[in-house]
Amino acid sequence: MLVDGKPYRTVWLKPDEPHIVQIIDQRKLPWKFEVVDLRTVDEVARAIKDMWVRGAGCIAATAAYGMWLASLEAMRDPDYKLATKLGARKLLQTRPTAVNLMWAIERQLAALSKARTDIQALEMTRETAESIADEDVSACRAIGEHGLTLIQSIYRGKKPGEPVNILTHCNAGWLAFVDIGSATAPIYAAKKAGIPIHVWVDETRPRNQGSRLTAWELSQEGIPHTIIPDNTGGHLMQHEKVDMVITGADRITRKGDVANKIGTYLKALAAKDNGVPFYVAAPGSTIDWEMNDGLLEVPIEQRGEEEVALIEGMTSAGKLETVRLFPQASPAANYGFDVTPARHITGIITERGVVRADEAALDRAFS
Amino acid sequence: MLVDGKPYRTVWLKPDEPHIVQIIDQRKLPWKFEVVDLRTVDEVARAIKDMWVRGAGCIAATAAYGMWLASLEAMRDPDYKLATKLGARKLLQTRPTAVNLMWAIERQLAALSKARTDIQALEMTRETAESIADEDVSACRAIGEHGLTLIQSIYRGKKPGEPVNILTHCNAGWLAFVDIGSATAPIYAAKKAGIPIHVWVDETRPRNQGSRLTAWELSQEGIPHTIIPDNTGGHLMQHEKVDMVITGADRITRKGDVANKIGTYLKALAAKDNGVPFYVAAPGSTIDWEMNDGLLEVPIEQRGEEEVALIEGMTSAGKLETVRLFPQASPAANYGFDVTPARHITGIITERGVVRADEAALDRAFS
Repeated sequence: MLVDGKPYRTVWLKPDEPHIVQIIDQRKLPWKFEVVDLRTVDEVARAIKDMWVRGAGCIAATAAYGMWLASLEAMRDPDYKLATKLGARKLLQTRPTAVNLMWAIERQLAALSKARTDIQALEMTRETAESIADEDVSACRAIGEHGLTLIQSIYRGKKPGEPVNILTHCNAGWLAFVDIGSATAPIYAAKKAGIPIHVWVDETRPRNQGSRLTAWELSQEGIPHTIIPDNTGGHLMQHEKVDMVITGADRITRKGDVANKIGTYLKALAAKDNGVPFYVAAPGSTIDWEMNDGLLEVPIEQRGEEEVALIEGMTSAGKLETVRLFPQASPAANYGFDVTPARHITGIITERGVVRADEAALDRAFS
Repeated sequence: MLVDGKPYRTVWLKPDEPHIVQIIDQRKLPWKFEVVDLRTVDEVARAIKDMWVRGAGCIAATAAYGMWLASLEAMRDPDYKLATKLGARKLLQTRPTAVNLMWAIERQLAALSKARTDIQALEMTRETAESIADEDVSACRAIGEHGLTLIQSIYRGKKPGEPVNILTHCNAGWLAFVDIGSATAPIYAAKKAGIPIHVWVDETRPRNQGSRLTAWELSQEGIPHTIIPDNTGGHLMQHEKVDMVITGADRITRKGDVANKIGTYLKALAAKDNGVPFYVAAPGSTIDWEMNDGLLEVPIEQRGEEEVALIEGMTSAGKLETVRLFPQASPAANYGFDVTPARHITGIITERGVVRADEAALDRAFS
C-alpha cells in the first residue's frame, strides 16, 4: 500500500541486490518511516524477535525470506543442509507461539528436502519465499473482494454519498501482512470501488497498535478515520454511528471461536446488543483445525506489565520519550488476547468467501 | 480515607482558621499529594473549573464551602445579599452541567434567603456547607453498608480466605465525593469487616482516572488491586476472575438507565454475557427524575481530542512530561460518557438500600 504516495510491501528483496531483505521498521511508526536492510539470518531473527516486524502474515513472509538468507549463508558452509537447518532453528526461536512462522519455515524445509543440489536448494528457498509473500497478498486481495460485497450492500441502504462507518480494533492492516491486510482489505477495496468509508480506529491499549499503525496506514491511503479510546465503540453503536465492525484474528478454532487482540470480545458484545454486524477478516491459514472450544483451549499470552505502565510518545520539543502512567505501588496485568465465541460473530471474511462462524461452514469452505 | 496513614476528606475548613477552605489538588495525583488553601470565592471557582477537584459529591461540597467564603467576603460589601448572589453565580459558571453543584448552590441560596441578619446568614452558609459535606459522607457510608451485604453473600460462596474480585471503572472513590466514595464504599466496608478483596481497576482511557486516582486510593488504604487496560474486563469475566462489577454513576434516569464514564456500558454487557452481577453505586441525588430514556435524553459531553492524543506521565528522569500518542494527521473523538440501559444492571446500591434499576423500585425507595 501507499507510503508517501509510493507503493510498498512490508518485506521484499532489494531490487538488483536480492541477497538483501528489506523491511519496514514498524517500531518507529507512526513517527518515522524507515526501511531496513537485513543481510543475514541473524539480522532477520533479531528483526522478528524485537518486533521490527509483527503480525502473522508479515512475520511468516519475513521468516521465509530469512530462510533464503540462511540458504545463501549455508553455501559457504561445508555442510549445506545442516547450516540451513540451524538457520531455521534461529528463526523458529524468535516468536515461539507464532503459528504462521512455524508454517513458513516448515514449508521452506520441505522445499529444501526435495532439492537435489545445493544450487537447486538455493533457488527453491528464494522461490518459496516469494511464493509465500505473493500468496499472502492474493489471500488478502480475495478477502478484500468478498468483504467489499458486504460493504456494498450496506452502502446501498444509506443515503447517497453517506459514508459507511466501519469500526476496527488493533492492526489487521497491511503492516500485519505482506500487503493490503485482512480487516483493512475490504476498506481498501471499497475505496477503489468509489464507496466513501469512515473508519473508527480503536486505540487498542496497551500497545496502541490502532492509533499507531492502523491510523497511520489509513492516513497514508487518504481514508477518513477517527481514533477513539477503546471505551468508545459501545456508545457509538448505540447511536447508530457504526455500520459494521471488522477485526482480524490471531487464531480461529474449527468451531469458529476467534482469538484476537484483547478487547475484541467487548466490541462483539456491543455489536450484538445493537444489531451491528460483526465480521472477522482472516485468511484460512488462521484456522487452527486442532482446536474446538476457544475459551477452553486457546492459550492467552500474559505479557509484561511495563506495556501497561509505560507509554511512548512525542514531547512538545519533538523528542520521543517513554513515560510511566502510574506509580509502581500499583501492579498491572496485561493479557494479550481474548476469545470471541462464535455465537457473537456474524461471519468470517476469508479468501474463500464470507463463511459462517461454525464448524460445518468452515469445513465446507476449506475442505 | 487514609493518605500516608492519616485520614482526610477531599474538602474541609482549616482547623482554627475556618475562613480557609482546604482541598486536595487532584490534578497532581498520583504523583504528589498536595493540600491547597482556598481563601476567596474566586479561588474556589478556579479550583472547580480547572478540575483541582472533580466528582459530583466533591464538587458540590467544595462549591458549598465556596458559598461560605462568598458570604464572608460579602460582609465587606455594602450590599450583602447582592454580593453573595454574585459569588453564587461565579461558582455556578465553573461547570455548567454539574447537577450537584447547582443543587448545592441553590441550597445555600435558600438558606441565605431565610436569614434575618447578615451575621445569621454568615452562620447559615457555614452550617449548610458542613451539612452538605456531612450528608455526602453519610450517604456514602450507607451505600457501603448496603453494598457490604452483597459482598458478604459472594464471600460465603467462595473457598475460605479466597478474595472477592471486584471490577471497577473510572473513579467513583472518595476523591469523587467528600469521603468513602460510592463504588468504593462497599470495598472499604468489606475491608473493615475483614473480607479479603481484590480490585480490578480499569485504567479508564482517555483521562486514566482508574490508574491515576482509584489505584492511588486503594494503595493508600492497603487494598490489593491490579490495574488493567479497559480492554481486559471481558476476558477476565469469561475466565471467572471477576465476582462482581461496581461502578459509579453520573446520572440515573427515573427508569434506571445509568450514564457513567465512557466504557461502563461495555463492562455491563460482558457482565451479563458471563452471569457476573453488575452494580451501580450512587446516592439518590444522582437520580434525575426528569429523565426517562437514558439513551435518548442524557446529553453526552464531547470533550477535546487532546485528551485522547496527549498523556501525562513520569519520565525515567523523574520529570512529569506530556507526550503525544499519535501524529496530528489523525483526528480523535472523545465522548465523555455512555449510557448503560437498565436491563443490563443487576441493581443500584444507594443510601436507601440496593434497588432494582426500574421506575417502580426507584420510586418506592425514594418517594
